[in-house]
Amino acid sequence: MSVSATSKPHLVEAGAETPAAPGAVRLFVRVLDWITHERCQLINITERINEIVRKSGVRDGIVHLQSLHTTTAVFLNEWQDALVHDVATFLDQVVGRRLPWRHNDPAFSDCERQNADSHMKGMLLGQSLSLQVRNSVVLLGTWQSIILAEFDGPRSRSMSVQVTGI
Amino acid sequence: MSVSATSKPHLVEAGAETPAAPGAVRLFVRVLDWITHERCQLINITERINEIVRKSGVRDGIVHLQSLHTTTAVFLNEWQDALVHDVATFLDQVVGRRLPWRHNDPAFSDCERQNADSHMKGMLLGQSLSLQVRNSVVLLGTWQSIILAEFDGPRSRSMSVQVTGI
Amino acid sequence: MSVSATSKPHLVEAGAETPAAPGAVRLFVRVLDWITHERCQLINITERINEIVRKSGVRDGIVHLQSLHTTTAVFLNEWQDALVHDVATFLDQVVGRRLPWRHNDPAFSDCERQNADSHMKGMLLGQSLSLQVRNSVVLLGTWQSIILAEFDGPRSRSMSVQVTGI
Repeated sequence: MSVSATSKPHLVEAGAETPAAPGAVRLFVRVLDWITHERCQLINITERINEIVRKSGVRDGIVHLQSLHTTTAVFLNEWQDALVHDVATFLDQVVGRRLPWRHNDPAFSDCERQNADSHMKGMLLGQSLSLQVRNSVVLLGTWQSIILAEFDGPRSRSMSVQVTGI
Repeated sequence: MSVSATSKPHLVEAGAETPAAPGAVRLFVRVLDWITHERCQLINITERINEIVRKSGVRDGIVHLQSLHTTTAVFLNEWQDALVHDVATFLDQVVGRRLPWRHNDPAFSDCERQNADSHMKGMLLGQSLSLQVRNSVVLLGTWQSIILAEFDGPRSRSMSVQVTGI
Repeated sequence: MSVSATSKPHLVEAGAETPAAPGAVRLFVRVLDWITHERCQLINITERINEIVRKSGVRDGIVHLQSLHTTTAVFLNEWQDALVHDVATFLDQVVGRRLPWRHNDPAFSDCERQNADSHMKGMLLGQSLSLQVRNSVVLLGTWQSIILAEFDGPRSRSMSVQVTGI
């Protein structure tokens, strides 16, 4: 591990500037549904989000993704089978499924799903994600995919996608 | 643990679509304050946020929550006593309070609060949260509540709430 | 550890309210580049973001930061040498570099960077951050700085910064 808190990185400002653009704003919403098939399942939703962005008529702005379930998450990462496996294994190590969770204990909770670990995973990665829209496409780096994570499937899951901009 | 990176979930597009709505944009801001009473305290702020959204006059858009303190967090989860207890216990396990943190060591730091663990918890869960507004209400799934976490109380804490939309 | 899920914190509403302000919206974008020098390097980018906000002409709204690389993150924390060291050490403990990651194993992956740990760190802290803009300045609490984290340097890194508002 090495950290250089005091180092001064070389800084270059790139030219990709959109001039200040006063104008009417568009707002476009779609709700997407998935039926998942496994307890822990990662889904690459990049293309579905791009379809909605294209339909929205928004050229530049923000697309906001909100999964409507506490035991899910939405985040960015590389989409590679090996890495997807690592993500699930890593989260299982950080959040033990069989710990003495009160949420799983009938003395404290009326939830019968035994899914305290799913709640912790969803909380760590979050259910809300904002991404920029540029030229009617979601702005993503070369290796960035948008991933929906199911942590307590199989279930039916919904995500509200809102595109705003000009 | 099971992951199916290659599975193709059944996809259904729901009909909750707001047509593209060019129009004037509203921006509304409130700062909320809390006085907390314990070192680690979780607070359900959903109703307070909904009050502000109603006052804002925004029908559809985004509400952005920003806690103004590094040793706090704002996130979504189910609001249940048992689960709230699990969240606090889980974070204590992931972030040991008594590790040899430099931030807690007078040789490296002039902070006397011994709160390095509070900083790590705040960083993991984040202090900024965007949620959609639909029909003048914060969009939330059945089990999603908005939770403010105090990790270094008792303190006075502030959050800026900004509602934008049409 | 103590949690009081049922406690009712004293609530005060502060007066910093911007009246609902219908008006034309501005959108301003800049891409910033950094060349990093170490594998794990934290960079305080607060002043660079404030420069862009000032240039944008936006008085009140949102600045959205999106790092374009999966092995980076952008988040808020106090900027102190001791704490920056703690952040890096903490993440190294949570995410072991030498675990049997499939992403680092030629039998499963063609990635030669041995950077599965970098992906996990980037995913935990996230690459997308929204902050409020008030009076042409990024809204930040006294101890909040905006930090860009490099987890797989040295590299050239880009962040797209979008300011929207009135």
